[in-house]
Amino acid sequence: MEIEMRIKGLVIDPISKMPIVVLEEIAGDRMLPIWIGVFEANAISLKMENIPTPRPLTHDLIKNVLQKLDAYIEKIVISDVLDNTFYAYIYCHCNKGKIIKIDSRPSDAIALSLRMEAPIYVEEKIVEKAHSLKFDEKLEDSEKLKNWLENLRPEDFGKYKM
Amino acid sequence: MEIEMRIKGLVIDPISKMPIVVLEEIAGDRMLPIWIGVFEANAISLKMENIPTPRPLTHDLIKNVLQKLDAYIEKIVISDVLDNTFYAYIYCHCNKGKIIKIDSRPSDAIALSLRMEAPIYVEEKIVEKAHSLKFDEKLEDSEKLKNWLENLRPEDFGKYKM
Repeated sequence: MEIEMRIKGLVIDPISKMPIVVLEEIAGDRMLPIWIGVFEANAISLKMENIPTPRPLTHDLIKNVLQKLDAYIEKIVISDVLDNTFYAYIYCHCNKGKIIKIDSRPSDAIALSLRMEAPIYVEEKIVEKAHSLKFDEKLEDSEKLKNWLENLRPEDFGKYKM
Repeated sequence: MEIEMRIKGLVIDPISKMPIVVLEEIAGDRMLPIWIGVFEANAISLKMENIPTPRPLTHDLIKNVLQKLDAYIEKIVISDVLDNTFYAYIYCHCNKGKIIKIDSRPSDAIALSLRMEAPIYVEEKIVEKAHSLKFDEKLEDSEKLKNWLENLRPEDFGKYKM
């Protein structure tokens, strides 16, 4: 089953110092943290804050390519997590009426979903794993991180800066 | 007139510390340095060195999107330079036989041309401006930079590292 989620915000992991995009369930209270790269975090952050850029960034280029080819994104689905790597698919509706499924990193899929106003879904099993925060066995401080994530206040999400 | 060029290599500008992608004329000896972002330089570098990545990077995603939509890149054209900003277009051949022209930063267009084996063209006027290296009026050390670029040895281009 796919759970619809939305972006709660971007934060910096206090342990690894990497950006985390935090998704939250729309019809519930579960959260999903996904560690992403700095560049992709920037692409998400600029769009979330509606900061205009003089030239199209790489994800704006993808949006322009899709629009020029009469294609749009129906949804993105975060489909799996293997060895702490998240997998996603972009479901694209092309002008022939066909649905095309494109393999993507979640960060690119999320950056694109923001630009094309496409809904974000996550497979139930991943939301469950993340909820128990046992998916990262290597993370010694997982309990601490879980508490930290749960206690983040809305204003903490505004602190993401490159 | 459009001049066909190819990538000579990537170097770090000793003054600004920013990556430069250096293009060279195929049928001549003119060069064109284009200052680009670190992320885009990485996308170009990884493909030039054929370094595999476990998951598709953002430019690989664009390639996958185009291929799934039966589109291919006919050519990229670096079309203009205004206030030290380069402009480019990606010419895309879609399945309806139509040619679509997409506005792009040169760095994205080049990263994509490498992945889709598309030729790189530059408007003659830009090659000329770059050849005289007067296009960057703010660059005090333009003469020094010109000499430095002209005296780069093939092995210097291998030194680009993130």
